[in-house]
Amino acid sequence: MATFTKPLAKLIEHFERFPGIGPRTAQRLALFILKQPEKNIKDFSEALLDAHYNVGHCKTCFNLTSGDLCDICKNPERNKKIICVVADTKDLLALERAREFKGIYHVTGGLISPMDSIGPELLEIRSLVERVSKSDVDEIILALTPSVEGDTTSLYIGKLLSPFTKVTRIAYGLPMGSELEYVDEITLTRALEGRTSI
Amino acid sequence: MATFTKPLAKLIEHFERFPGIGPRTAQRLALFILKQPEKNIKDFSEALLDAHYNVGHCKTCFNLTSGDLCDICKNPERNKKIICVVADTKDLLALERAREFKGIYHVTGGLISPMDSIGPELLEIRSLVERVSKSDVDEIILALTPSVEGDTTSLYIGKLLSPFTKVTRIAYGLPMGSELEYVDEITLTRALEGRTSI
Repeated sequence: MATFTKPLAKLIEHFERFPGIGPRTAQRLALFILKQPEKNIKDFSEALLDAHYNVGHCKTCFNLTSGDLCDICKNPERNKKIICVVADTKDLLALERAREFKGIYHVTGGLISPMDSIGPELLEIRSLVERVSKSDVDEIILALTPSVEGDTTSLYIGKLLSPFTKVTRIAYGLPMGSELEYVDEITLTRALEGRTSI
Repeated sequence: MATFTKPLAKLIEHFERFPGIGPRTAQRLALFILKQPEKNIKDFSEALLDAHYNVGHCKTCFNLTSGDLCDICKNPERNKKIICVVADTKDLLALERAREFKGIYHVTGGLISPMDSIGPELLEIRSLVERVSKSDVDEIILALTPSVEGDTTSLYIGKLLSPFTKVTRIAYGLPMGSELEYVDEITLTRALEGRTSI
């Protein structure tokens, strides 16, 4: 059976390693590369290495940044007394898109998950406790995904930080525009538990 | 609104240019890159440039290859008297996967499409005519997708080549495992037209 010529097969193999990219998509991406002008490919290749070398973690909140501190920590208009704890930079960006939160963040880098051998020591939780114990913080808002791992992590952080400051958790309930009849039982339970007076 | 740090934003932009990759996927791929060890990224970057510089078209059939001739044209076991015409390398590989065809190929690089201003002069059709007129060919099998463009291209090539040799077209009909009641009208019409005696 004929296959792709070696340099192309190698490139396809590289694309297949990406998350969510199957053999067919990898093939399409590699064939797309072949049709690109040399400049685009060189730029892409440089962008890959540039991102690898120059993007690190913010020393304060562990958000991704190319400097020592991220733009949010450096911004004097952000309220430094409210820290929102998220698992990942992607979650931070989702919150930023909502344009509601004016405080600063702390990115743990994941959730506690005994099933995947991820204990609290592998996450940026100790640094969070240090950060909170050393500075004057009014509130810690936990914004972790509603799952077994998220709840475990929330409880763990809550226990550690409640001696220092107020710890809250974002509300779990019905998403906007959802039909009550199609919402799953756990979300409904959470929505009932979290009911507020109007 | 906070965004990704510049080197990361640039990398995401590059991924977004790929076909079928939206902003979310581009973000996921770029974040994946950040988590990779340096060696993997360097290898990937080299594979990109290597594929660009070293993959070209076979001088005979215009299949992708890193040499002058592709593996199929070089293979002495392939029947050089039967040429199968396909639009793209991907189609050639699909046929190779079926392990049925033992001849050689000719890749046109696309289909005639006046809507997209693709005329026959942009495709490898003139080279096909030259190839057929110069060598002893028993049969040309047209394996182009069943569409307006595919049919136009088949008719065009058929007219040009029929003075030299026998020209056939692969059968259009019901795909294996399909339910007759769900097959579209055009496929059914083609299947009826192409009926064979048993």
